[in-house]
Amino acid sequence: MKKLLFSLLVSVSAFAQVDRVEPPFWWSDMTHNEVQIMFYGKNIAQNEVTVSNGIVIKGIQKTENPNYVFVTIDTQNSPAQDLVFTFKNGKKSFTQNYALKSRKENSRFRKSFDSSDLIYLIMSDRFTNGNPNNDNNDKLTEKANRSNKDGRHGGDIEGIIKNLDYIQSLGATAVWPTPLCEDNDERGSYHTYGQSDVYKIDARFGTNEDYVRMSAELHKRGMKNIMDYVTNHWGYKHWMMSDLPTYDWIHQFPGYAQTNYRMAAQFDTNASKKDFDLCMDGWFVKSMPDLNQSNPLVLNYLIQNAIWWIEYADLDGFRVDTYSYNDKTAIAKWTKSITDEYPNFNIVGEVWMYDQAQMAYWQKDSKIGAIQSFNSNLPSVMDFTLQEAIANGVFNEDKQEWRNGMVKVYENFNNDFLYPNINNLLVFFENHDTNRLNEIYKNDFKKYQMAMTLIATVRGIPQIYYGSEIGMAGDKGKGDGDIRRDFPGGWNGDTNNAFTKAGRTEEQNKFFDFTAKLLNWRKNKTVIHTGKTTHYIPENNVYVYFRYNEKESVMVVVNNNEEKQTFKTNRFAENIKKYQSGKDIFTEKTFDLKNDITIDGKSVLILELK
Amino acid sequence: MKKLLFSLLVSVSAFAQVDRVEPPFWWSDMTHNEVQIMFYGKNIAQNEVTVSNGIVIKGIQKTENPNYVFVTIDTQNSPAQDLVFTFKNGKKSFTQNYALKSRKENSRFRKSFDSSDLIYLIMSDRFTNGNPNNDNNDKLTEKANRSNKDGRHGGDIEGIIKNLDYIQSLGATAVWPTPLCEDNDERGSYHTYGQSDVYKIDARFGTNEDYVRMSAELHKRGMKNIMDYVTNHWGYKHWMMSDLPTYDWIHQFPGYAQTNYRMAAQFDTNASKKDFDLCMDGWFVKSMPDLNQSNPLVLNYLIQNAIWWIEYADLDGFRVDTYSYNDKTAIAKWTKSITDEYPNFNIVGEVWMYDQAQMAYWQKDSKIGAIQSFNSNLPSVMDFTLQEAIANGVFNEDKQEWRNGMVKVYENFNNDFLYPNINNLLVFFENHDTNRLNEIYKNDFKKYQMAMTLIATVRGIPQIYYGSEIGMAGDKGKGDGDIRRDFPGGWNGDTNNAFTKAGRTEEQNKFFDFTAKLLNWRKNKTVIHTGKTTHYIPENNVYVYFRYNEKESVMVVVNNNEEKQTFKTNRFAENIKKYQSGKDIFTEKTFDLKNDITIDGKSVLILELK
Repeated sequence: MKKLLFSLLVSVSAFAQVDRVEPPFWWSDMTHNEVQIMFYGKNIAQNEVTVSNGIVIKGIQKTENPNYVFVTIDTQNSPAQDLVFTFKNGKKSFTQNYALKSRKENSRFRKSFDSSDLIYLIMSDRFTNGNPNNDNNDKLTEKANRSNKDGRHGGDIEGIIKNLDYIQSLGATAVWPTPLCEDNDERGSYHTYGQSDVYKIDARFGTNEDYVRMSAELHKRGMKNIMDYVTNHWGYKHWMMSDLPTYDWIHQFPGYAQTNYRMAAQFDTNASKKDFDLCMDGWFVKSMPDLNQSNPLVLNYLIQNAIWWIEYADLDGFRVDTYSYNDKTAIAKWTKSITDEYPNFNIVGEVWMYDQAQMAYWQKDSKIGAIQSFNSNLPSVMDFTLQEAIANGVFNEDKQEWRNGMVKVYENFNNDFLYPNINNLLVFFENHDTNRLNEIYKNDFKKYQMAMTLIATVRGIPQIYYGSEIGMAGDKGKGDGDIRRDFPGGWNGDTNNAFTKAGRTEEQNKFFDFTAKLLNWRKNKTVIHTGKTTHYIPENNVYVYFRYNEKESVMVVVNNNEEKQTFKTNRFAENIKKYQSGKDIFTEKTFDLKNDITIDGKSVLILELK
Repeated sequence: MKKLLFSLLVSVSAFAQVDRVEPPFWWSDMTHNEVQIMFYGKNIAQNEVTVSNGIVIKGIQKTENPNYVFVTIDTQNSPAQDLVFTFKNGKKSFTQNYALKSRKENSRFRKSFDSSDLIYLIMSDRFTNGNPNNDNNDKLTEKANRSNKDGRHGGDIEGIIKNLDYIQSLGATAVWPTPLCEDNDERGSYHTYGQSDVYKIDARFGTNEDYVRMSAELHKRGMKNIMDYVTNHWGYKHWMMSDLPTYDWIHQFPGYAQTNYRMAAQFDTNASKKDFDLCMDGWFVKSMPDLNQSNPLVLNYLIQNAIWWIEYADLDGFRVDTYSYNDKTAIAKWTKSITDEYPNFNIVGEVWMYDQAQMAYWQKDSKIGAIQSFNSNLPSVMDFTLQEAIANGVFNEDKQEWRNGMVKVYENFNNDFLYPNINNLLVFFENHDTNRLNEIYKNDFKKYQMAMTLIATVRGIPQIYYGSEIGMAGDKGKGDGDIRRDFPGGWNGDTNNAFTKAGRTEEQNKFFDFTAKLLNWRKNKTVIHTGKTTHYIPENNVYVYFRYNEKESVMVVVNNNEEKQTFKTNRFAENIKKYQSGKDIFTEKTFDLKNDITIDGKSVLILELK
């Protein structure tokens, strides 16, 4: 019986063809000197594989699924050229073309985002519907339905491109759109974190070519394209899921096992093996199979896919989703492979923890990680403790107590020495997974000013979330849809068009003007990008800090007290030094540094010292 | 005029005598091969100093105050002997006897307290008035006044000695009385953290000999004496304050400068120099001059004083007050000097911070400290984050949310890897500076049981505070006096004598019996003292952890849910292993580990696995 089945399979194989090739093409002159090409087709593994042009096949790997074959070719010193792979089984054979392309000049040493940037985070489906013709696609299940707050609304790449001037006018220098690759889930596909094809832009967002064009449009403006990459999981509609290359391509359990989301189990020396395994290997949600990066084929697939996008779409950086949910050893290899290929490439990982030592653990060359001989290789992490302080209502704490008020913000920076690279921390007060600042503070403009001033002037890379700048609110408690509302003006027929001064309400202009002024000021302020910080223990809920370098110095004052405050400047003598006066960037009012300084309740000063 | 004054001084010096000698005597065969003796007397510095017996004077140090001279003698290979110092000025001279004594056998390698101990912290003035005759002393200002909750109540060393059997019956193996050296402040002298003579027990507590006798009585019972040592400051009535050896013996400021109490400034790389200096050098309170340990004379004075007490009173350990308020480099030298002399001596420092990385910074050989090339040399720190979780009402959180309930306790142990030595952390839920547990939880016996079970079964050295074991409450908000109430039965005429079963109320016996059972059980449980820990993410507010070694295993279950909980045991398979059953140490009920386990609301199980 077994023999019979085998014969049947063999006879079927005679008709094998290549259904998919991934990566679809590659480049010559990569530093990593090989590429592992996955060929997928019915019983393709039963063929002998050869390649043209004298290229060396370094390895052929087959799995328990005969529909896959992984062919590794040597690309060392191979110029750009077109290759032909031949698949032969007995007398039958077929071929598959493959291209090694030329790289963009100096691709390896491309610059990336850093603390001189301001990142504008966009929920791609909710920003602007630039091309209403692609809202639905025959091959993709979920259809546009703007009345469903968890449905697809039609935002797309064209919409982002159309508004790059707007984004630039705000002072942003980089965009981070939420993932754009295909997500063919029946529901909630708009957020696109459950991808069904990681080599293809979702047709409802546009095409691969549109994405490349977006990069070019950004670069034309001196701006940067940061891709939101997902290593931890794919969507359950990913094309491989119905025909896995190996059983262990994803983490499988008897029954379903969800992650415990307790990321501390990754380093907790008291953790049970069960909790440890589940935190990494459990699924994020039922519709997102957890990829097994400890399988070298999977890891390499993800490495090559990431590199493919960098090279193909001329990327300037990655934001990596759920970084700490990955197998930590494997994800460290993934990250290292990318930064080995692109030494200046910046990658910020979502490590959502509320403890600086725990976050610092995940940053490249961490001394905390080193306690466990771990190096994540991840250049950048997110400053979630700062976000927490702000989001937990610090600006509602009018009076300072021992551990309340601006002390919470001050304390956030006490532990900076734990981070290997404080300038490479993402600083933000909200993102697409948190409550909106303008919800928490009920659009209190003064509190918004304090929050935005902090984000724009402390160390690190500021990130703002689309719509904050016009006072958009949103309540996480009402569901993710509420914190991902459509940007007004992004859809035909929107009565409020917040993309233009004329279209914005008076209230929206108040928010926008303040933000644009601050962020554009920051743009060329090296002292803010890379200057040192000296901060002072807050007194009376007033937090004072200086950013300085050898050339200039900026004094920031955040008065979170509801009352006007007057303070002496002699306490700051070591920073004031020879400077005589400070000019506020907002009011252009000059303060004599020999005199007391008075600041209104719930307000800020950013003084350029002269 | 100046010359005249000088002549006058010289003529006065002819009558110099020695008013004080510190240390008053020393020992032969110390590993550190010299001792620096401070002689104090009117114009004593104007004498030539010699010493008998061929002992070598290695150095004579004088200061700007002629009333002090510091004479360093070589003690290498010097047997115990009586020496005579001669002070000579022209034709006048006088002598001072000095003894080098024999050390107790094996003094250098004395054992100290460790995780096999249970420390009983006593507020010395408030425990028992064992000798009413010493309540007042003619030479000491503040008089006993039991009706003043901030006054002296008469507790003393005799009172501690009288109740050592009681303390031992509870299961404690070490006592930490608050400081006993003389504090001649007019007010609040009862807490004795502002000492006026650090070589002398306060007469209202007893004599130096009484203190030595207390050590002997403890050792007779196999118990340990931990001295509460204060390096950071003395009282303003310290005898030196009216005639400082050097101006910089204490930190002096134009006007008064109080510490900012923000200890993070010690390592904060963003801290201003002003905040950094003030945190270490500012005074704790006005009545406590801040010692300048970066003055080598001061540092050495403190080192020798500490060693003197260890050797003289046969101590088993130090608790060091306000450890992180000291100059951090200097205090690290102090600590190293003591542990160089006594390699097994344990010292626990009060490092009161709410962040594990910050606390770990201060423990000997810390990898966190090493980031700044700092090694405090301090063997033990206090687990204040655990204390905070308990004191902030975790047992009132009946239902578990993402970050509430037993998760808070679980999370405390996630960062154990940051500590170089987790077994050398002091674990406690209250001390003489915090709210009382029985105040926070309104004497809820069930919550007390959960708290005490945690303290007695997690890693580290448990410390309990006198009176907890009989349900004593006390509200920090009402002032320190309220958390330092008299132990009932410690004063003649007390109607409630909680030192005996018959004298305790029914309620007190309930608390005492539970505590004594638990702590006496712990006494010989190596698996609790030094076993490894595996803990599990709490589910439904039930926290389960195992302490185990190669020989035995204990399963602890804390159900903080108000409802009875039943859970499956297969989740714990990796710890249950071959064990069949678990016997609860309280009820002696046996649980079959193959079956579900049911536990009452707000209760604990400590199962010895068989």
